[in-house]
Amino acid sequence: MAGVGQAMHRLMAELYPICRSITGDGNRQTLDILRRFIPLEIHEVPTGTQVFDWTVPREWNIRDAYVKNAKGERVIDFNASNLHVVSYSVPVQRRMRLQELRKHLFSLPDRPDWIPYRTSYYNESWGFCVSHRQLEALADEEYEVCIDSSLTEGHLTYGEYMLSGQTADEILISCHICHPSLCNDNLAGIALAVHLAMLIAQWPERRYSYRFLFIPGTIGSITWLARNEAHVQRIKHGLVVTCVGDGGRFTYKKSRRSNAEIDRVAQHVLKQSGHPYVTEEFFPYGYDERQYCSPGFNLPVGCLMRSPHGSFPEYHTSADNLDFVRPDDITASLDAYRQVIEVLEGNGSYLNLNPKCEPQLGRRGLYNAVGADSHQKLDQMALLWVLNLSDGAHSLLDISEAANQPFHEIKHAADALERCGLLRKCAPGSPAPTG
Amino acid sequence: MAGVGQAMHRLMAELYPICRSITGDGNRQTLDILRRFIPLEIHEVPTGTQVFDWTVPREWNIRDAYVKNAKGERVIDFNASNLHVVSYSVPVQRRMRLQELRKHLFSLPDRPDWIPYRTSYYNESWGFCVSHRQLEALADEEYEVCIDSSLTEGHLTYGEYMLSGQTADEILISCHICHPSLCNDNLAGIALAVHLAMLIAQWPERRYSYRFLFIPGTIGSITWLARNEAHVQRIKHGLVVTCVGDGGRFTYKKSRRSNAEIDRVAQHVLKQSGHPYVTEEFFPYGYDERQYCSPGFNLPVGCLMRSPHGSFPEYHTSADNLDFVRPDDITASLDAYRQVIEVLEGNGSYLNLNPKCEPQLGRRGLYNAVGADSHQKLDQMALLWVLNLSDGAHSLLDISEAANQPFHEIKHAADALERCGLLRKCAPGSPAPTG
Amino acid sequence: MAGVGQAMHRLMAELYPICRSITGDGNRQTLDILRRFIPLEIHEVPTGTQVFDWTVPREWNIRDAYVKNAKGERVIDFNASNLHVVSYSVPVQRRMRLQELRKHLFSLPDRPDWIPYRTSYYNESWGFCVSHRQLEALADEEYEVCIDSSLTEGHLTYGEYMLSGQTADEILISCHICHPSLCNDNLAGIALAVHLAMLIAQWPERRYSYRFLFIPGTIGSITWLARNEAHVQRIKHGLVVTCVGDGGRFTYKKSRRSNAEIDRVAQHVLKQSGHPYVTEEFFPYGYDERQYCSPGFNLPVGCLMRSPHGSFPEYHTSADNLDFVRPDDITASLDAYRQVIEVLEGNGSYLNLNPKCEPQLGRRGLYNAVGADSHQKLDQMALLWVLNLSDGAHSLLDISEAANQPFHEIKHAADALERCGLLRKCAPGSPAPTG
Repeated sequence: MAGVGQAMHRLMAELYPICRSITGDGNRQTLDILRRFIPLEIHEVPTGTQVFDWTVPREWNIRDAYVKNAKGERVIDFNASNLHVVSYSVPVQRRMRLQELRKHLFSLPDRPDWIPYRTSYYNESWGFCVSHRQLEALADEEYEVCIDSSLTEGHLTYGEYMLSGQTADEILISCHICHPSLCNDNLAGIALAVHLAMLIAQWPERRYSYRFLFIPGTIGSITWLARNEAHVQRIKHGLVVTCVGDGGRFTYKKSRRSNAEIDRVAQHVLKQSGHPYVTEEFFPYGYDERQYCSPGFNLPVGCLMRSPHGSFPEYHTSADNLDFVRPDDITASLDAYRQVIEVLEGNGSYLNLNPKCEPQLGRRGLYNAVGADSHQKLDQMALLWVLNLSDGAHSLLDISEAANQPFHEIKHAADALERCGLLRKCAPGSPAPTG
Repeated sequence: MAGVGQAMHRLMAELYPICRSITGDGNRQTLDILRRFIPLEIHEVPTGTQVFDWTVPREWNIRDAYVKNAKGERVIDFNASNLHVVSYSVPVQRRMRLQELRKHLFSLPDRPDWIPYRTSYYNESWGFCVSHRQLEALADEEYEVCIDSSLTEGHLTYGEYMLSGQTADEILISCHICHPSLCNDNLAGIALAVHLAMLIAQWPERRYSYRFLFIPGTIGSITWLARNEAHVQRIKHGLVVTCVGDGGRFTYKKSRRSNAEIDRVAQHVLKQSGHPYVTEEFFPYGYDERQYCSPGFNLPVGCLMRSPHGSFPEYHTSADNLDFVRPDDITASLDAYRQVIEVLEGNGSYLNLNPKCEPQLGRRGLYNAVGADSHQKLDQMALLWVLNLSDGAHSLLDISEAANQPFHEIKHAADALERCGLLRKCAPGSPAPTG
Repeated sequence: MAGVGQAMHRLMAELYPICRSITGDGNRQTLDILRRFIPLEIHEVPTGTQVFDWTVPREWNIRDAYVKNAKGERVIDFNASNLHVVSYSVPVQRRMRLQELRKHLFSLPDRPDWIPYRTSYYNESWGFCVSHRQLEALADEEYEVCIDSSLTEGHLTYGEYMLSGQTADEILISCHICHPSLCNDNLAGIALAVHLAMLIAQWPERRYSYRFLFIPGTIGSITWLARNEAHVQRIKHGLVVTCVGDGGRFTYKKSRRSNAEIDRVAQHVLKQSGHPYVTEEFFPYGYDERQYCSPGFNLPVGCLMRSPHGSFPEYHTSADNLDFVRPDDITASLDAYRQVIEVLEGNGSYLNLNPKCEPQLGRRGLYNAVGADSHQKLDQMALLWVLNLSDGAHSLLDISEAANQPFHEIKHAADALERCGLLRKCAPGSPAPTG
């Protein structure tokens, strides 16, 4: 797995310098790189397209931007960091005194070496983000200000990757691609989603179909939902991938339903993982779960992350860089995602075919007589739990929670009992049989 | 508000000397004073009237009472405190030795300076309450005992004040008026109810009708319920007002339903108030909530108080006097009552008319772009919460609780969204629409 | 009650030396002794009888067993303790070196003076259990090994005692009799069940019928359930009696239903008892509750014990002897069982016949006027609770829990109110009347 962590980090490093926003060539360039790993379908949605209450905005591109001092030196330079320019800044080519320029400068006095990240998508404006040291070093003189950007009729670009499974029921994995040189939010999410897709693509069989979305935040999910409204109920479970690369404890933010299967599974996996974690109820702020969980859709989509957005000082600053995300941490996050999906794939209800008293496990080789060690005893408890609760009304997840054992141990026991003919899988969605 | 506290305290001071009981001229005199503030309707119910399992008792009045020692000095004197006579004492005019007298004397050995408060409504008897120091100072001699009281055919007297609103649905505010010179229990309750009524009467519109009852405890609420049985289901919410003037933490005793709207609202207001408070489940002891919450009525009536009856040493003693209740404390209680009623008035369910994804708040002036301060951010959260949960199945109170924000902030957001056409109020009692 | 504790201990002492197993003459001898106390019906089920997934095994009997050293001395001797022989050991008569013998010897290195208890019912095998000191003292020489046992066509033997009551609804008390010289598990359970049966037999009337089972563990309950499948739903409540003689805190293991009446009653009794106790959710391990609570039966059978099996070091060793179980402790256990059954007998729903406001308790002699002491006040609270919650939807147990008062106080109040005509018992199973 160390290899996977390094590979994810390398992908982040390759994507890091690109200037992304909610539209523009940086996003196309990003998706092209991802296509080396997974065969993404690229969608281009024209400016002006109505998507529910919103309109796809003009496309923003930027070639260069700087502020030159009286000596003609670039004291702020887009080439040094794409965070220097407020995203969606309109073109500017003017000379002005510091007093006027300062109205367009943003810094973090508390973190004097960090550059903040700012956007102004729907409010025509321009600005520069600088470290507070940079800001304070500016002399009271005339500056040449240039933002060589364009806002033109164009497209909103997003990538979609579909992996079909045995059923049309879908698991949605959604990550936003609109942030420029910021790693935890959300190059780590992009890298995790790509490697998760590669991993699942290799499985010999999949019960669910999988939909991976690489979209700009907010307007991207709104656009996707508007274009796919008819089929959206196929999504049975979903996760928004963000802030998965830092070393903080895990955080699971529940779907609006609060007790959807994805909510229970994510909590089960985190609880059994031994990692520190917290669970949060849904709240209507954050990333694209806001749209998936709007009341008109109310999809069972949660958010599995490490430190939530806004909770770590590096958030939306130049300090959310390649040093802030570490291969081991993002690997642990990928592993949690994989386990969540394995539980979703394996979950289901079974029927004990010998429900009156326990069956005799011994003559089926499932019982260890004299000399059982503690590992075998655990297995025996899993067998007994599965037999006792397989009345059609309890899923294997229910049983795992009742037994407080990892899902895979319970699943392992169910498989063994099914092979012995003691258990039969219930058809999905079938009514619970009455005893 | 300081003015209101002083005004309530002045009213208590004026009512303090009057000798009240469950019947009698003291109650009429009390209600007459209240009519200077609110146009109370006075009801007189004749002795002997059957009210459910009870009978309205004879009317009790008292002119004078004393115990004179051998020298003819009044060693116990009704004129010094009306607490000295056990309420409903039958007339007495006799001489007796200390030994016999003592069977009729009640004191508090643990609180040697306080006079206890005792009653004997339904058990013909007489007695004096004295401080323990008074009791111990009595010499073994002959005493002249006089209680110049009368128990005659008469009436039970209570006051009622009705404020009509847009609907016939009622909010009941009930306080007992049967206690003599005792302040926290319940002159404070009377003063609060009067000022609450004055305050609500000034509102330009009221969704609910309001019924204020000033009644003797137990027999008064039983009498009122017996006479108004046919219309009692109009009461949608209610509070019994008692012990609202001391400086203890707030206590909310729930209605028998335990999760009625009044129960949730009172808890919400106390939680958001920042005041220390406790919540108690209903129990069949206390004041008139016992009758309103009897199983045959089971009205949603709770009890919002400070220190509950019996929990403070001054309870039912002469120490529950005008010094024990302070203007600031009763003002804080009045404020809590007002807030509870404002939430009841403003609560309701709304429908998000743009339920698929979030609406674009920016172009409606509801979103602050660059430079949002934390206060505006809170407002934005209120907007997002209201939009997310306004599916017809969540009331604004539900949303306030989910958001953990004060009701008025949520209501403010709902009003703003309604003005923008993003929200529509559901008809009260309409079924939740299906998405 | 001290006499009962001594009597139970004497019975344990008499049963202690007998070698019991899941079949055999030791069980018959045990049941014969119990018949001196209660008129047990003895059932003999032939070897080979199919009982659900199981088959009644051959009958095992043992006359003698030993290991003799080269000098002919019995270094392990069945006559010293019947724990020395692994239960269901096949006959052996051989000479062997220590190396081979050791494969058949079991000891507890951590508890070098204690003999473990081992069985091999369904796996043909033989073995000796010894103290670790014994084991280590064995020289490397040749030994004569003799187990004079027999495994033959025979019977499984169990005892059953039925006490009929006013209804056919049954309370099941089940204890296992398959353990040899072990006291807490389960001679204490046998002694408690016998004395509980004697006690209940003396009651002048019983609402429930009572079924006491004295059966070998697992195969015994499976056999009984297989033979009585048609009538098993008569069992409305049940308890498995095990580990009731040690001095540990009480443990109640819930039935699989988790909130059955027996579960609520047992918790109520323990909570009100003042004894330290813990409650455990059902889990599919332990004793015969595993069979009663298998999903095909799902009977409301819990397990009321002191220290649960496996939780105390003496468990399944020679240290679980007559010193480990004390008359006082088993008496406290018997008392808890008795109280649980008294609550089950007395529980039911009542209807307040004067549901509108409180009735006037005073004129019925149920109210204490001036001078109530705290004991009477408690009684008054019980009266008020019963009146307030007797709407047909709350049982006396519900009321006890709401009031946090012992069941017998609530029952006492209900009886008094019923005598006054204020309360009427609802027919069992009748629908809750609507107010």
